[in-house]
Amino acid sequence: MVETVVQFQPFGMKTPVAAGTTILEAASKAGVSIEAICGGSGKCGKCRVTVTAGTSSLSPRDKDEKALLSDREMKAGTRLACRAKVLRAGRIVVEVPEGSRREHHRLLAKGIEPRTKLSPAISKVLVTLPPASMKDFRADDDRLLDELRKRARKKAALDPGVHTHLPRALRDKGWTTTVSLFRDCEVIKAEPGDTTDNLYGIATDIGTTKVVAYLVDLKTGEVVGTQSIPNPQIPYGEDLMSRLSVTMRQEDGLEKLRTAIVDGLNTLIERLCVKGGVDPDDVLEVMMVGNTAMHHIFFGIPPQHLASAPYAPVVRTSISIPASQARLDIYPFGKVSALPNIAGFVGADAVADLLASGLHGDRKVGMMIDIGTNTEIVAGNSERLISCSCASGPAFEGAHIRFGMRASTGAIERVWIDRDTREVMYTTVEDRPARGICGSGIVDAVSEMLNARILDSSGKIAVDGGAPGVRRGKDGVPEFVLVNARETETGEEIVVTQHDIQEIQLAKAAIFTGVATLMRKLKVRPSAIDRVYAAGAFGTYVDAESAINIGMYPDVPVDRIRFIGNAAGSGARMALKSVKERDLAEELSRKVGYIELASEKDFQQEFAKAMFLPHRDLGYFPNRGKRARTRHAGRT
Amino acid sequence: MVETVVQFQPFGMKTPVAAGTTILEAASKAGVSIEAICGGSGKCGKCRVTVTAGTSSLSPRDKDEKALLSDREMKAGTRLACRAKVLRAGRIVVEVPEGSRREHHRLLAKGIEPRTKLSPAISKVLVTLPPASMKDFRADDDRLLDELRKRARKKAALDPGVHTHLPRALRDKGWTTTVSLFRDCEVIKAEPGDTTDNLYGIATDIGTTKVVAYLVDLKTGEVVGTQSIPNPQIPYGEDLMSRLSVTMRQEDGLEKLRTAIVDGLNTLIERLCVKGGVDPDDVLEVMMVGNTAMHHIFFGIPPQHLASAPYAPVVRTSISIPASQARLDIYPFGKVSALPNIAGFVGADAVADLLASGLHGDRKVGMMIDIGTNTEIVAGNSERLISCSCASGPAFEGAHIRFGMRASTGAIERVWIDRDTREVMYTTVEDRPARGICGSGIVDAVSEMLNARILDSSGKIAVDGGAPGVRRGKDGVPEFVLVNARETETGEEIVVTQHDIQEIQLAKAAIFTGVATLMRKLKVRPSAIDRVYAAGAFGTYVDAESAINIGMYPDVPVDRIRFIGNAAGSGARMALKSVKERDLAEELSRKVGYIELASEKDFQQEFAKAMFLPHRDLGYFPNRGKRARTRHAGRT
Repeated sequence: MVETVVQFQPFGMKTPVAAGTTILEAASKAGVSIEAICGGSGKCGKCRVTVTAGTSSLSPRDKDEKALLSDREMKAGTRLACRAKVLRAGRIVVEVPEGSRREHHRLLAKGIEPRTKLSPAISKVLVTLPPASMKDFRADDDRLLDELRKRARKKAALDPGVHTHLPRALRDKGWTTTVSLFRDCEVIKAEPGDTTDNLYGIATDIGTTKVVAYLVDLKTGEVVGTQSIPNPQIPYGEDLMSRLSVTMRQEDGLEKLRTAIVDGLNTLIERLCVKGGVDPDDVLEVMMVGNTAMHHIFFGIPPQHLASAPYAPVVRTSISIPASQARLDIYPFGKVSALPNIAGFVGADAVADLLASGLHGDRKVGMMIDIGTNTEIVAGNSERLISCSCASGPAFEGAHIRFGMRASTGAIERVWIDRDTREVMYTTVEDRPARGICGSGIVDAVSEMLNARILDSSGKIAVDGGAPGVRRGKDGVPEFVLVNARETETGEEIVVTQHDIQEIQLAKAAIFTGVATLMRKLKVRPSAIDRVYAAGAFGTYVDAESAINIGMYPDVPVDRIRFIGNAAGSGARMALKSVKERDLAEELSRKVGYIELASEKDFQQEFAKAMFLPHRDLGYFPNRGKRARTRHAGRT
Repeated sequence: MVETVVQFQPFGMKTPVAAGTTILEAASKAGVSIEAICGGSGKCGKCRVTVTAGTSSLSPRDKDEKALLSDREMKAGTRLACRAKVLRAGRIVVEVPEGSRREHHRLLAKGIEPRTKLSPAISKVLVTLPPASMKDFRADDDRLLDELRKRARKKAALDPGVHTHLPRALRDKGWTTTVSLFRDCEVIKAEPGDTTDNLYGIATDIGTTKVVAYLVDLKTGEVVGTQSIPNPQIPYGEDLMSRLSVTMRQEDGLEKLRTAIVDGLNTLIERLCVKGGVDPDDVLEVMMVGNTAMHHIFFGIPPQHLASAPYAPVVRTSISIPASQARLDIYPFGKVSALPNIAGFVGADAVADLLASGLHGDRKVGMMIDIGTNTEIVAGNSERLISCSCASGPAFEGAHIRFGMRASTGAIERVWIDRDTREVMYTTVEDRPARGICGSGIVDAVSEMLNARILDSSGKIAVDGGAPGVRRGKDGVPEFVLVNARETETGEEIVVTQHDIQEIQLAKAAIFTGVATLMRKLKVRPSAIDRVYAAGAFGTYVDAESAINIGMYPDVPVDRIRFIGNAAGSGARMALKSVKERDLAEELSRKVGYIELASEKDFQQEFAKAMFLPHRDLGYFPNRGKRARTRHAGRT
């Protein structure tokens, strides 16, 4: 008997299967995890895959597939994995798109590892010098610099910190010395003998909530280790504004916050070095990104003016200062650098996002969206880029949502509601009994409630429609039962309340006002947006179709959405690994225009219109009708 | 009756005098102090002046003048002030050359104040910026830098130290701000309002023995105050070598010596600021010069390799580091700069000497000699300059001389011995009873003993010649009684011993070996040396004719010798006041060749020949015979 083998791309994993097996089952056997919230019943449409070879070995599309897939998808070879069955022997190749993978989120959370040509700002050069003698009594600095100039480091000069070690560095290994140059001109270190093998850097993304640091081998570009901690400033305030107010109210507030983050970063540096077996003295640069407030506080720059109009940062330009001045425990005369900021609420992290996205190199118009308590958006192409910041608030992190929680064990992360029965299907993080709803879960829930007509376009729960699970809570506020008490960890029902819906409406309206404003400034319609780069952990976990469906992302075909994970960290590593990237960052930060949304006329009206699901003005969501029809087609 | 008025130049002081008054008496009346060791008896020839107007009102030259003055001097109008008498009414103008002034030493000790076009490295710029608004939300740094770029500071960038103060500096006086720029590109300070009036710098010469600091108003170039202290490293060793050995023997030796000098300098800075009513925060630069060892220790650079061949310095190039890193208590982000070094024993102080001398601009060949424990010599012209260092030792500071002492109260500073009677005449510092002999006194004594044939050219005291005052001491060593017991403060005779003579021979031989080597390298004879710049306190106090006579200075006409006082301090002030001068210094330090005397072949023989008075090879002293004849002519 000729065996049928199904291979899954881009992973390369394959498995032999018997006739009658679905692609979804084959995937599970091959160890590939495909989304299927409705449990493989052909209803949720989350298990879309593309068959690139062996179509003839599969069952033809059934009515569920015909109902859920667009013509465009059908032409492209898209199938629902739960519906497509192996019928006869052959070699079948299946492409699993990002949006259908369950595992990609965890991988992406680290951030993509962009291909960057390795050319770090710090380089090591091995020199062997003619020994000092009575015939050649040049000073140590001249002896070294003459040699470097011969090697085309014409502008080489010694950092004063090097003077102290210079005589030993030259003489201890018989005039063979390794020098470390910053940007090919500033000698920041001189060591006896050949130490060219030891050259490390650390990239760090200082988020308001979380600090991540990556130890990078600057000889190979390889990430040696990753460590993260909650931002140690959290005790001074959960959000940026409360931390800024600490710097205003308390004389030593800035110093306290600075010490907290510097100590935290030093903890990360120590852990990275211990685990990686790296001497901190061999770490010659730290590249930092973060929002403008984190950036300012880290460097001890007074940030209070960020808290009030016109929110002008103190420093936009790139910074490189000696590590000792930045108080970081790496080589003291190493550098601590930061990417440039764009504006008070579009910081170095957004510049890093932009670098990692590659949007600045696109010829067609695209949009980079990094959703957080503040959401940064950059839109445009290689010709022109504009940016804005939206006060989207912490709802997507679970705050102000009745059963909101972070994306940890037991958090509902995917929701699907049967259009007819209103039956709710969901998945949780690590497949544990449900404890609450995380950001991607609540976005799914709102989208599905809308699709299942539990919500109207104004966001009101149709409490009088008599739909199952819809009711008034004890406080009289309408709510929808997402999970009944039997299935939860606590034995308590998990509900979505009218208040929760409103929080999500406010958050998504804030974001979409930014999206719409940038589209208006660029004079583009949704169809002209060739690519949406979804950055940040939330952007990675959230279901793109749901995000479009509630009116948070612009209305583009889902396959135009690229998940770029923790792009701020990726951008920081790119800048650490390549001077070209950091020079580009400086250029971009000057070039990217900044739109202050609050000072746009009609801001209030725009915001109010964006409160609708997806929007008051359906011109922004030309595919809304089509999507709704497609979704319901199979059910009528 | 028509009065006779005598005017003295270059002072401009004048006095009416009666007929019969000598110019020496007139000078005293006018408050001009002219040397006259022999008490106005026409014998010592120290009171040479040049009459530039009214010659016909004076007595003709008598036989003493004819005996002591050369034909060249007589043609030039030179007279002995003690011999020239006013005979008839008229206006007489008398030029008092430096060598004949008693007071010039004290004035010169401060150093000449060279005319330097004021263009300090630090400049202040007053800017008024457009206020931040919702229409102009540029970052503070961009706002400031855009304005500076408009004003032709294209390369302006902010020192990271400025970030901390920037928001306050811009906003506290309504967007009117004063920025301080280092070298027109690095913004090191930003202050609210107009503070352009407050801009100070400090120049300091860190000598092995003495540290002098000058507070300079960088708006006017004016020296606001001068302070000095003994070098606080002296407890660790009187001379350089013993201090260098402290840095080698003791683990924390360098740190101890560094702390000593840094603390000492901070004391000077505090005194200067308190006395001058200047806020130390308004002192934006310290310009330091010193020998290479002092330079290295001050900056914490390991200096031990200066102690052994090939004596290579660690750092030749100019340095500018933040004041906080140099640990000086001025504005923390101000600069502490140092002029470049040339070699292990030709340091930034010699470069400063050179700057102050102007030798580097001369078309004819000249020589700059700065005598100290180490004597630095630079010779050449605008085309070519070479330098060397001579281990001349501390004899000129009174060390190893039986009655040697520093040039303080009661020190014999001038000596004249009657060729016939061997009668000794002398002057002391502040005209107090003699306590000992300082450097200039001992050089005079040796020269006069030679002229009076108490010494032969090998330096032996002619103890068997039966000359008055010559005898064997208790230890059998020949000695000459300079001052009898009645005249001294202690009631004890002051003598010059054979050992003393030998010390001076060693010292002057060390110096002249350098002088001769540089002359040989430049292929010049003494007659080709157009100018000798005598720098340093000793060089200023020593009698040029005596110095030539014993074979320490090259044999040039005395009027070719320029006293430039503490030229190292002057050069430091020049570099503080003008970037051109400091750029020139860097250029010179690269350009000036360095001759390591000890590695010259025939060094030992050259040294041995230079032990003679003036030299074994009288080709170096072509005027020796003439001088001896002139000196004795009047006496025979």
